[in-house]
Amino acid sequence: MTLAVRYTAARTLDTAPALSAPPGPGEVELAPAYVGICGTDLHIFHGDMDARVDTPAVLGHEMSGRVVSVGPGVEGWAPGDAVTVMPLRWDDTCPACQAGHQHVCQNLDFIGIDSPGAMQQRWTVPATTLIRLPEALALDRAALVEPTAVAVHDVGRAGVKEGERVVVVGGGPVGILIALVARAAGADVRIAELSAHRRALAEESGLTAWDPAVDDVPELVREWTGDAGADVAFEVSGAAAGVGTAVEVLGVRGRLCLVAIHPRPREINLHRFFWRELTLVGARLYDRSDFEKAVALVADGTVPADRLISKVVPLTEAPAAFEALEAGGDVMKILVDCTDESDDAQGAAV
Amino acid sequence: MTLAVRYTAARTLDTAPALSAPPGPGEVELAPAYVGICGTDLHIFHGDMDARVDTPAVLGHEMSGRVVSVGPGVEGWAPGDAVTVMPLRWDDTCPACQAGHQHVCQNLDFIGIDSPGAMQQRWTVPATTLIRLPEALALDRAALVEPTAVAVHDVGRAGVKEGERVVVVGGGPVGILIALVARAAGADVRIAELSAHRRALAEESGLTAWDPAVDDVPELVREWTGDAGADVAFEVSGAAAGVGTAVEVLGVRGRLCLVAIHPRPREINLHRFFWRELTLVGARLYDRSDFEKAVALVADGTVPADRLISKVVPLTEAPAAFEALEAGGDVMKILVDCTDESDDAQGAAV
Repeated sequence: MTLAVRYTAARTLDTAPALSAPPGPGEVELAPAYVGICGTDLHIFHGDMDARVDTPAVLGHEMSGRVVSVGPGVEGWAPGDAVTVMPLRWDDTCPACQAGHQHVCQNLDFIGIDSPGAMQQRWTVPATTLIRLPEALALDRAALVEPTAVAVHDVGRAGVKEGERVVVVGGGPVGILIALVARAAGADVRIAELSAHRRALAEESGLTAWDPAVDDVPELVREWTGDAGADVAFEVSGAAAGVGTAVEVLGVRGRLCLVAIHPRPREINLHRFFWRELTLVGARLYDRSDFEKAVALVADGTVPADRLISKVVPLTEAPAAFEALEAGGDVMKILVDCTDESDDAQGAAV
Repeated sequence: MTLAVRYTAARTLDTAPALSAPPGPGEVELAPAYVGICGTDLHIFHGDMDARVDTPAVLGHEMSGRVVSVGPGVEGWAPGDAVTVMPLRWDDTCPACQAGHQHVCQNLDFIGIDSPGAMQQRWTVPATTLIRLPEALALDRAALVEPTAVAVHDVGRAGVKEGERVVVVGGGPVGILIALVARAAGADVRIAELSAHRRALAEESGLTAWDPAVDDVPELVREWTGDAGADVAFEVSGAAAGVGTAVEVLGVRGRLCLVAIHPRPREINLHRFFWRELTLVGARLYDRSDFEKAVALVADGTVPADRLISKVVPLTEAPAAFEALEAGGDVMKILVDCTDESDDAQGAAV
């Protein structure tokens, strides 16, 4: 029997049999191997997204796994293929899709929020969502491809160029991935992050991290840039103070890329946007090219996946892992191990 | 004797002899003809900018006039030449200048705020600030070149393209000029403006104007755009509600160009910026190419200057005009007539 982790109500997860079904036309059945727990999953766990999520809901959208079987009409995929999933389904008819921005389709189905996710031992998805993984890439590391694709998209939206000075406000998993991707693009990067553990992880990756509780970040940026200010800031903290810092560090024509979710309106210093001709650019999700670039960055070690994976827990312990993450502590990314040693598909493929 | 209008203290203007001096090296002495009263002049008049303005201060930066005499080393200019002035002096050494953004120099001298302005009968400025006017362009109309240059800059910062749908929130002088410049760029434009007088002026210019006190502007935009939302919004109102409207009308990847000055922080729906991948772009002042394009737009009638000039008052009545503008009422642009019929330079040149 294959299992699934299900969100049933605020602060409540259970495990139940996975709803396995043979793949229909154009679909592929996967055996998920590793699934990362994302901030959005925690928002759902908190009950913040009950208006959007139908319960019981199988969470999870940062995954790696293997193809188990392919449905009618599916070409190019075979059982055993290592894959990750770009968890988006768009309608191709709304104005956003018509304008070529399918990833922010006005009727987007985000798989793992709006429809069942990857935190289960069998998962059927459209073949169009599959992204091939190199066989040499370990599947646990590959679970970082999806958040890396977010970072690639964000760095692209901000238009980071070689030699630019970049400040990342918030050094959680997405923040540190943005810093790594921006550095790979040739930028000089600083991170502002409250957690000593996360700052240490950033430093181990060769990044400079400041503590906004102690350091005067805008003043440090002025010193660093000779009073010019930063070229780009990423707001990844989700905090009001983080937004203020991200605006304040920017120099003339600086770009602020808004990554974090701010459910409530925030007070913004619009005068600074006028005075310095700043730009604020919203960034959400990714497209296929972001995903393909992310695969390469995880595979070639630009993203030090082993360092960023704090812990791997078995599927049956996922509920406890959510509770631990909610309590905070010294953690970056936690993966849920969905592999099943008794599973022929998984065993044969690994 | 030549006269100047001077700001001496909050709500107080007087007239006094102009401080005439022969132009030094690289300088040109002008006889201003017409000077527009700008919103910034009103802010100064209110006393809001006393921390920045040294009193007594000669205001005025939207001007037309003629060259009276040229200082040593000035080439290409002769007495009688019709000109306007791009009222910016930059230091060429700060990081903004070094990056090629002189118009937002970190030590910018804005002539007419930070140093004496045009509302006087003699005015000495650096020859580098001069912009030539075609002889066929009447000098009263030419006083609209400076605010038109603002509009050209704003439309350029927003990247307005042919066929795009544009909403201008706030239909005062700069708002209507933005609408006209955007239309000239091929956009389909709507204005949201509370004043019936200003809406009527917009309609007379062939623009569609909505009343945000009565009309549901976001709903009208949804109907207009088939639920896609606008491509571009300009926030020119300076009001909190205007910012909200400008954000709400935008479709996926829409751009909000921030034109108005918001001295206090404003609450912004950042979630919408994330969800629709919106962009906010600050726009301030202009550069020489904006000015040259503005001259062409005023000269060829794209900007219907006669319709936008509500009133021309003699220099001695400028104080009363400021008071009337502060009281509001049915007005768009008021010009101060600085010409002096007894002035040989002005008389000879006209």
